Amino acid sequence: MGHCPRNGHTVPDPHLGRYAARTAGMTASEIRALFAVASRPEVVSLAGGMPNLAALPLETLAGQAAQLIAGEGLTALQYASAHGLPVLREQICEVMALEGITARPDDVVVTVGSQMGLDLVARLFCDPGDVVVAEGPSYVGALGSFASYQAQVVHVPMDGHGLVPEALRAALLQARAAGQRVKLLYTIPNFHNPAGVTLAVERRAEILEICRAFDVLVVEDNPYGLLGFDGQTYPALRSLDPENVVYLGSFSKTFASGLRVGWVLAPHAVRDKLVLATESATLCPPTLNQMIVSRYLATHDWQGQIKTFREEYRERRDAMLGALEAYLPPGCTWTEPEGGFYVWVTVPEGVDTKAMLPRAVAARVAYASGTGFYTDGAGSRRMRLSYCYPTPERICEGVRRLGAVMESELAHAFAGA
Amino acid sequence: MGHCPRNGHTVPDPHLGRYAARTAGMTASEIRALFAVASRPEVVSLAGGMPNLAALPLETLAGQAAQLIAGEGLTALQYASAHGLPVLREQICEVMALEGITARPDDVVVTVGSQMGLDLVARLFCDPGDVVVAEGPSYVGALGSFASYQAQVVHVPMDGHGLVPEALRAALLQARAAGQRVKLLYTIPNFHNPAGVTLAVERRAEILEICRAFDVLVVEDNPYGLLGFDGQTYPALRSLDPENVVYLGSFSKTFASGLRVGWVLAPHAVRDKLVLATESATLCPPTLNQMIVSRYLATHDWQGQIKTFREEYRERRDAMLGALEAYLPPGCTWTEPEGGFYVWVTVPEGVDTKAMLPRAVAARVAYASGTGFYTDGAGSRRMRLSYCYPTPERICEGVRRLGAVMESELAHAFAGA
Repeated sequence: MGHCPRNGHTVPDPHLGRYAARTAGMTASEIRALFAVASRPEVVSLAGGMPNLAALPLETLAGQAAQLIAGEGLTALQYASAHGLPVLREQICEVMALEGITARPDDVVVTVGSQMGLDLVARLFCDPGDVVVAEGPSYVGALGSFASYQAQVVHVPMDGHGLVPEALRAALLQARAAGQRVKLLYTIPNFHNPAGVTLAVERRAEILEICRAFDVLVVEDNPYGLLGFDGQTYPALRSLDPENVVYLGSFSKTFASGLRVGWVLAPHAVRDKLVLATESATLCPPTLNQMIVSRYLATHDWQGQIKTFREEYRERRDAMLGALEAYLPPGCTWTEPEGGFYVWVTVPEGVDTKAMLPRAVAARVAYASGTGFYTDGAGSRRMRLSYCYPTPERICEGVRRLGAVMESELAHAFAGA
Repeated sequence: MGHCPRNGHTVPDPHLGRYAARTAGMTASEIRALFAVASRPEVVSLAGGMPNLAALPLETLAGQAAQLIAGEGLTALQYASAHGLPVLREQICEVMALEGITARPDDVVVTVGSQMGLDLVARLFCDPGDVVVAEGPSYVGALGSFASYQAQVVHVPMDGHGLVPEALRAALLQARAAGQRVKLLYTIPNFHNPAGVTLAVERRAEILEICRAFDVLVVEDNPYGLLGFDGQTYPALRSLDPENVVYLGSFSKTFASGLRVGWVLAPHAVRDKLVLATESATLCPPTLNQMIVSRYLATHDWQGQIKTFREEYRERRDAMLGALEAYLPPGCTWTEPEGGFYVWVTVPEGVDTKAMLPRAVAARVAYASGTGFYTDGAGSRRMRLSYCYPTPERICEGVRRLGAVMESELAHAFAGA
């Protein structure tokens, strides 16, 4: 970390002694480091989480953006409040109502994507050494934010029905016995990234109860909740315990990721502090972007649009599951997501997904190695495959290539044994 | 801080025991707290720092935004890199060349306004208890970011030629003697916010030398550098010492604040860490906004546009200086800015600018009390007046009202003595 390549040479970093201690936790994620190679056109990337935007009504959006700038440009291009535009915060409450949430617009804070919400929540709650409990595996961007505030992540196992309540209780008891201060449960209840599973409805109240009993605040990250393939939704944790849940929402997966509009819904006192933290972080979220989202929600059949997205993702999910069945070697298993973007694959002994990755990219297929989704070194026999962005044909071809690479790994492992 | 008003009642914050220690430094700035009242139409606000956007070519910008979404929407509305769009980073290098900076686009990181750059620099360098040296007074948003990383700000005096080198040296010696670790000099060399002064060119090399000698990294914040009323520019500190300066730039004052596009130019090793920190903070800056700025720079006479802005601001500066001369009571003094947005006023003994503020707002004029620009309680006989946003007529009327309020304060102070 103390050296950087420049002009082909590696020179020492003259600022090395100056960095804050927290920078030790800031490391390039394996997934992001891969983006450059994986984005070459001949590589089928099953690695990224880019939504498929092709179905968006671009002409309509173009016209609306033009109207906003020409007609309301002095507002759209000007600073606004750190809290977020009132009209958008009202609309966000309507969006959340689809998952059973009753909220006041005043308790919503608009953020630059829900990543910013996550970062601000970590900023507000995590002292160095504090523990955050999270599913194992967990979202790589969350692990990065927690690391950058020097919090320690303790993973709790999932099964096919999501986070296991008994395992959560055991982890909290163990942390308590070890004298650790557990501040947060970070959880993605619906169509989990990367695991592709959904927290069973009957577990939700129990998990909230456990967190209350251990005085742990729940951070519910829900970017995929409206992307259930049959249009099914689940009661948000926030709807069951408004005072002990901070909820993170996003328009990145249901509308347009590049606008970077997300939000946090928080208990009122926490919301006050979030607004202050937002001012330090960016002064305010971009005004134009909030107005574009607001206009879209007000004028477009946004729920119909989400249905279109869901249908596309279901088709791709089906393509991927079919290809996995057809091409992966015996001994592989995988989750069968009912919504969202990801399948989580377990590979046979003899395959190390992190070590295999460069060979897979050489064979023109990329994935996200499981190790990036844990802070404790686990995951070398897991991988995340995304079906959100490539076409069904590309998905099939990518999985075919992946199967061949895996066969070759297994043959080598066998030969070497 | 532990209570929040709700439905007219004050209830204890149930999360009080959970916050990170750094939240103790997150307090509502006096200036921001004032925005709600100060934005009533009958109040002349000389408090805010909103740029005057009226001269922007809104129709052109509307057309360009529409083209970008209709023609390149699948890129404009999609995630992009945390580093920022390459084409925009190249253009940013051209902008910086106007102030003598030679830089590689690779060393530029695009941020969500330069506030985000500031916050990330504090994140990378400030451990709790570290010292940041800054002008006294200094930008309130910087003070907020440093506080939120638990750094301690030590103010160094300015005179009419900006930061005083001898005072900087003395402060650094004193900090060293006290065993303090000074990490950063945070400075706004050009058209200072709030002081309205510019660092003399002949002081620049000396200040850089002092910082090198004391192993202190320089953070140069330069949002106003191209807004000199005679078109004059000054050599950026970064141009004089590329390896020991982190430079913060912004399109908020020269183009459109509501797009939230700023940047950091940093030594290469620092840039690597900035990109990682950006990923944690927001994943990536908004793509559409970067493309709008890039298209504008590529197709519009942006330097001519800045000239138009400068001329408007000069007219307003003149209006304000004339009004100050005409309406403020004897004993007031003020700086005479040659660019930027702000005049810094010193009031006579007997006037407390923080205490007077509610009475000024009642008299339909708002300003920023000097106390918000210091961390050490100074500033009660100073105020910042902004001439950037109101028309010259409104500026005159505002200063007239302010003069009357001050006369009344002085009469009361006299009566009470």
